[in-house]
Amino acid sequence: MNARRVAYTAPRTLALEAGTATAPPPPGHVAIDVAYTGICGTDLHIFHGSMDARVGPPQVIGHEMSGRVAEAAPDVTGWVAGDNVTVMPLVPCGKCPACHSGHRHICHRLVFLGIDAAGSLQSRWTVPADTLVRLPEGLPLDRAALAEPTAVAVHDVRRAGLRDGEKALIVGGGPIGLLIAIVARRGGADLLLVEPDPYRRGIAGSLGLATLDPAAVDAADAVADWTGGAGANVAFEVSGAAAGVTTAVDALATRGRLVQVAIHPAPREISLHRFFWRELTLLGARLYDREDFETAVGLIAEGHIPAESLISRIEPIDRAAQAFEALEAGGGVMKVLIDCQSDAGADAR
Amino acid sequence: MNARRVAYTAPRTLALEAGTATAPPPPGHVAIDVAYTGICGTDLHIFHGSMDARVGPPQVIGHEMSGRVAEAAPDVTGWVAGDNVTVMPLVPCGKCPACHSGHRHICHRLVFLGIDAAGSLQSRWTVPADTLVRLPEGLPLDRAALAEPTAVAVHDVRRAGLRDGEKALIVGGGPIGLLIAIVARRGGADLLLVEPDPYRRGIAGSLGLATLDPAAVDAADAVADWTGGAGANVAFEVSGAAAGVTTAVDALATRGRLVQVAIHPAPREISLHRFFWRELTLLGARLYDREDFETAVGLIAEGHIPAESLISRIEPIDRAAQAFEALEAGGGVMKVLIDCQSDAGADAR
Repeated sequence: MNARRVAYTAPRTLALEAGTATAPPPPGHVAIDVAYTGICGTDLHIFHGSMDARVGPPQVIGHEMSGRVAEAAPDVTGWVAGDNVTVMPLVPCGKCPACHSGHRHICHRLVFLGIDAAGSLQSRWTVPADTLVRLPEGLPLDRAALAEPTAVAVHDVRRAGLRDGEKALIVGGGPIGLLIAIVARRGGADLLLVEPDPYRRGIAGSLGLATLDPAAVDAADAVADWTGGAGANVAFEVSGAAAGVTTAVDALATRGRLVQVAIHPAPREISLHRFFWRELTLLGARLYDREDFETAVGLIAEGHIPAESLISRIEPIDRAAQAFEALEAGGGVMKVLIDCQSDAGADAR
Repeated sequence: MNARRVAYTAPRTLALEAGTATAPPPPGHVAIDVAYTGICGTDLHIFHGSMDARVGPPQVIGHEMSGRVAEAAPDVTGWVAGDNVTVMPLVPCGKCPACHSGHRHICHRLVFLGIDAAGSLQSRWTVPADTLVRLPEGLPLDRAALAEPTAVAVHDVRRAGLRDGEKALIVGGGPIGLLIAIVARRGGADLLLVEPDPYRRGIAGSLGLATLDPAAVDAADAVADWTGGAGANVAFEVSGAAAGVTTAVDALATRGRLVQVAIHPAPREISLHRFFWRELTLLGARLYDREDFETAVGLIAEGHIPAESLISRIEPIDRAAQAFEALEAGGGVMKVLIDCQSDAGADAR
């Protein structure tokens, strides 16, 4: 067996380790032969060194994945070798106030696999059995690797309480922004996506989404035109930029809802007067629960997620470092998957 | 008839005008003999000159009131001279997107009586008939003048979706903060009120409310102790201060709701990361609708609003300017009512 894994060891440094031994899974755990691992914005933050205190390098990162069960511990029921799976990478404590109030996904002591513990950027990954999510027969594993970001989008749209016929502005057209647009459109919303990057606007346009370049058009004017002066019912802030927050707040109609999806490490100046005046609502949205994850797998399996537009390319695991560098450079890329399969050249699609 | 009115004419200047003629009410309107008018924070903002562009002096201000119907226009049904009333001082346009979506109280072209049009700081006030709210028999008119601020509190508590047994932090212990506390307590909430002023803390304490001096105690630590580390389910930001916003955000439990009641003219720095991390909700809350107003009148009539603690004193209309100056100086005062009755010395209680 040609086992390999990629560890984040220091800022801008990933180490490829080959031939690592694989122990049998401990009680309650399942070992997975990882097929694909997607790289997300959080992985890039880790790569930049911004999260060292939390990650504690060296650490195998990665949390968007698909694979097949290799071996289940003897006490685990329901899973057998060969089952196609993805993983909901959350291990809540079960004891804190958030867990007790039914919000285990935002547990105060949440262990996020791929950040706080070893992730999926390796050919074999051992995880608690209750993190596994079954994949339907015949679902190609590269597409299935989009389950985690799709679950984020499902959660965000659900948190918005988006209703059929409502108008929603999406500020930021990266993978999560596009997935929100696709999920929201299925719910009957009328959408406008704000994105400065022409490549990303191009992909959105090819998916039939209306887009706006904030460098060329005043977003507030465009929203006023689009909504007959009323404003948008919902705005999703997926840009992480200060200007994106202002665009989202200014776009909202009376009683509009702003869903805060992107991470803003620094405080942002917000017009609380606007929140007061129009009785706006701001909703923080983080991660997903199992229902969101299973909905996401269903959307992918039924062909509603345009994986061919979202997956820019698939790189072999021994080129993971180059893939991170290319993503960091930006431009002309949406989602990159890493092929983690131990047999070089295997095609699990 | 000894008619009098008080007009705001320029920053820090109120003019008492006596012997003004009273025309019969135009179609659809009712003339009211005003009994009492309360002075609120917005009136002080106007007095400071901060709202001249909107108010357009000279203007009769005042919008918290009680009185008796003097005369109804011939086309008005349901009201007769002598009916005891208060006024919900909102005139929505009925045509804008907010009105069309059922949120007439935050109409885009709302006329607020006492700000955008003549208010109640006069012995006779003529208003559209549909702004009148009936007062129960026997309800003293000084107590009834608290209907408008009580309606604000009812609206804020309703906007919070506050449930029995939840813990709510109230940041700011002026009249609105105290009224929110009283309304929330009736709904079964467990409360903690943050207020730096010892006089206001004393009144809150005399009403059986737990209070905290933010200058003496770390509010975050106190909330952690109070909630067993979970945080508050709801925070009401009623202070208008930057520090109050931070206190409220930091106090909230996972999925906690922050109701933004106070007016913040300048943008405030907000930790969007905290909103994301704990999936918090921020809810802007403004004014009230008719249901809130009628609930407020009911609460006052049933004796649930401690008017004797909230009304610091009642001044005759010819001392309105001095009352404004005393309120502006702050300290040792909660709510001041102006006795607007045309017959000097009349006691409508």
